[in-house]
Amino acid sequence: MQTNEWAHRMASQTIKLTDGGGNPVAGKEVAFRQTNHKFKFGCGIFDAIQVANRNVPADRLAFLERKLDLFLEVFNAATLPFYWGMFEPEKGKPRTLELQVAAKWLKERHILVKGHPLCWHTVTAPWLLELSNEEILNAQFARIQRDVSDFNGLIDTWDVINEVVIMPIFDKYDNGITRISKDLGRVGIIKAMFEKTREFNPGATLLLNDFNTSINYEILIDGCLNAGISIDAIGIQSHQHQGYWGREKLEEVLERFSGFGLPIHFTENTLTSGHVMPPEIEDLNDYQIPDWPSTPEFEERQASEIEEMYTILFKHPLVEAVTTWNFSDEGAWLGAPAGLVRKDNSPKPAYESLKRLIKGDWSTHVTGKTDENGFVSFDGFLGEYDLVCGDQRASFTLDKDTATVHLVI
Amino acid sequence: MQTNEWAHRMASQTIKLTDGGGNPVAGKEVAFRQTNHKFKFGCGIFDAIQVANRNVPADRLAFLERKLDLFLEVFNAATLPFYWGMFEPEKGKPRTLELQVAAKWLKERHILVKGHPLCWHTVTAPWLLELSNEEILNAQFARIQRDVSDFNGLIDTWDVINEVVIMPIFDKYDNGITRISKDLGRVGIIKAMFEKTREFNPGATLLLNDFNTSINYEILIDGCLNAGISIDAIGIQSHQHQGYWGREKLEEVLERFSGFGLPIHFTENTLTSGHVMPPEIEDLNDYQIPDWPSTPEFEERQASEIEEMYTILFKHPLVEAVTTWNFSDEGAWLGAPAGLVRKDNSPKPAYESLKRLIKGDWSTHVTGKTDENGFVSFDGFLGEYDLVCGDQRASFTLDKDTATVHLVI
Repeated sequence: MQTNEWAHRMASQTIKLTDGGGNPVAGKEVAFRQTNHKFKFGCGIFDAIQVANRNVPADRLAFLERKLDLFLEVFNAATLPFYWGMFEPEKGKPRTLELQVAAKWLKERHILVKGHPLCWHTVTAPWLLELSNEEILNAQFARIQRDVSDFNGLIDTWDVINEVVIMPIFDKYDNGITRISKDLGRVGIIKAMFEKTREFNPGATLLLNDFNTSINYEILIDGCLNAGISIDAIGIQSHQHQGYWGREKLEEVLERFSGFGLPIHFTENTLTSGHVMPPEIEDLNDYQIPDWPSTPEFEERQASEIEEMYTILFKHPLVEAVTTWNFSDEGAWLGAPAGLVRKDNSPKPAYESLKRLIKGDWSTHVTGKTDENGFVSFDGFLGEYDLVCGDQRASFTLDKDTATVHLVI
Repeated sequence: MQTNEWAHRMASQTIKLTDGGGNPVAGKEVAFRQTNHKFKFGCGIFDAIQVANRNVPADRLAFLERKLDLFLEVFNAATLPFYWGMFEPEKGKPRTLELQVAAKWLKERHILVKGHPLCWHTVTAPWLLELSNEEILNAQFARIQRDVSDFNGLIDTWDVINEVVIMPIFDKYDNGITRISKDLGRVGIIKAMFEKTREFNPGATLLLNDFNTSINYEILIDGCLNAGISIDAIGIQSHQHQGYWGREKLEEVLERFSGFGLPIHFTENTLTSGHVMPPEIEDLNDYQIPDWPSTPEFEERQASEIEEMYTILFKHPLVEAVTTWNFSDEGAWLGAPAGLVRKDNSPKPAYESLKRLIKGDWSTHVTGKTDENGFVSFDGFLGEYDLVCGDQRASFTLDKDTATVHLVI
């Protein structure tokens, strides 16, 4: 364990251990076992909906359950889909219950759930097109009020609004959200959506999210902060279908976006185990090929890129979350071999690398011995812990600058 | 006169004409002679400093006076230089008096003067480099307080801050303003400079100015407005050394920046009468050639481009000012043949075209006849007028939606 380079992810902690009668548990061997991370290692895991709702045939369910098991072995955070056009394809018939079941299923497994997104011009409700701009805005507000309220306590992290840099000039097809973003302006629509979301879940972690990592997004964030919008974290997409950014670009992006002093979440990370999409493709959606195979050679490349990238991000003090966008190649965006597991659920090298980092290198499993007064200290990565002493067990949270914790076993 | 396409530049006005005894001046021929425009037809005219101060040899002065006469025949607005590095090259010794003399000279000739700029990373005071960032910011504030106060009433239009899109990432050389812009952020430094300028001239017209006409600048303005910064006009530079934008780009830029509903000033317009700078040059300052001739063929091109561009801008209801950056090829930026007159003061075709538009096509010189009650009406371009009746004369301002004006002759 290299204490220095991970210092921002770790803390020293002193525990006072007593028995039920208040007597120090003295001179005993204790084990500290990290059970969860403070850092959010996330993944898009939309299959959780079918697994939790058990609304698919038995063989399919079994397959998906194996996939979810593999997910749960590594990750502690999940992104669930709230694309309006899929969540409420018919006005007034939202898929609330299904998503609640999924969010609850994940929460019970200690997975922090994020909803993605509340407002976006893509996959938005098609029926908005029949409304006036004022009605669209009211429908969007009502949608936020309903969904943020319905999921309060289950989902307290939201990608509030997605891809605003392009939103008002998005011209691939007409849609209700681009229409109102032209009226409100970029900062105006962000402000409106953040305020509405905050109103119905004041304690939530609210993100602005974009794939644009240029100066455009910097200036937009600067404007938002000066306009008093309370953004809790800057969301950065990093779909690298056209090749790994590499250390230099990654550190340059981190440098530029860390200037705001806000937490940074890598919200949608893709590194494929296939050939690289040609650089001349401007909108990734324009690349449509019948088959995009995962190959052994590229799987090794993916593993080493993911290892380097996660290491750089985990080292950066402002990064608080990294989300791999597709857990599996099955159903991955653009048909890319973007998953950590193949279509048949077999783990790729990248899955093993990530598991080793998250559950091995960056997890703390140490032992110590209490002194005559029941005190024992250790250094560990921030997160949730079990202290195990003989056949006794107690849980606690390791965070920065906490006083001595008193545990009773 | 095509009333429809210029309707936003014109007004109908009824005048009631009486004599000193209050009797209607009935059945008399009157002439309406426009003496000035509401629209600001501006030019950079830094030579006004030497002409007004008369601090050059006699032959040089005579030459410059001819140049200024040509300027005064066409324009009603002027930009004077307040580049900090030139205005106050030695700390505490600003060229205030010289500039006041120049501004007064221009004002007496009915020229509206703009100061350019109060804050910019280029040609800024070199001695800022010896200060801490806090001291630089205080020096910048003190500079604004001093200069805006010293010129209050002479200069009530300011380019407050210049080229902020690039300011914090400007890396050609170290300078004090880039340093503080990194600290404050883009919207932060704009807010600080606007507030300080406003404090010492509350009624002034304050501009944000940039050569960047991309989405970057749009997002920056959006952020500024949402942050409550009171920008009076959006300044757009249009140095077209690499070729005329053309109608399509010009209208596209107007379309995008008119979305804010604010007045638009074209603050620095260049269309040369020479060959076009190669497109691969990214920073215009990097193009250094020993001689950049003005040729008859390109002078015709310049004239037609200027005519088209000014016509498009004058037609657009939100454009309130257009400033030709260099009046003469002599001393023009980058040595380009950017002027309306050649180095020897001989007018180019573009000068004649612009004069014809401003003083001919877009000026009102009409006659009418008072009725039995002394009333007479006319339509004209907005601005200042003389009414001439026989050997009598009276002045008035033509603006939108004014009631009947009562003039006594």
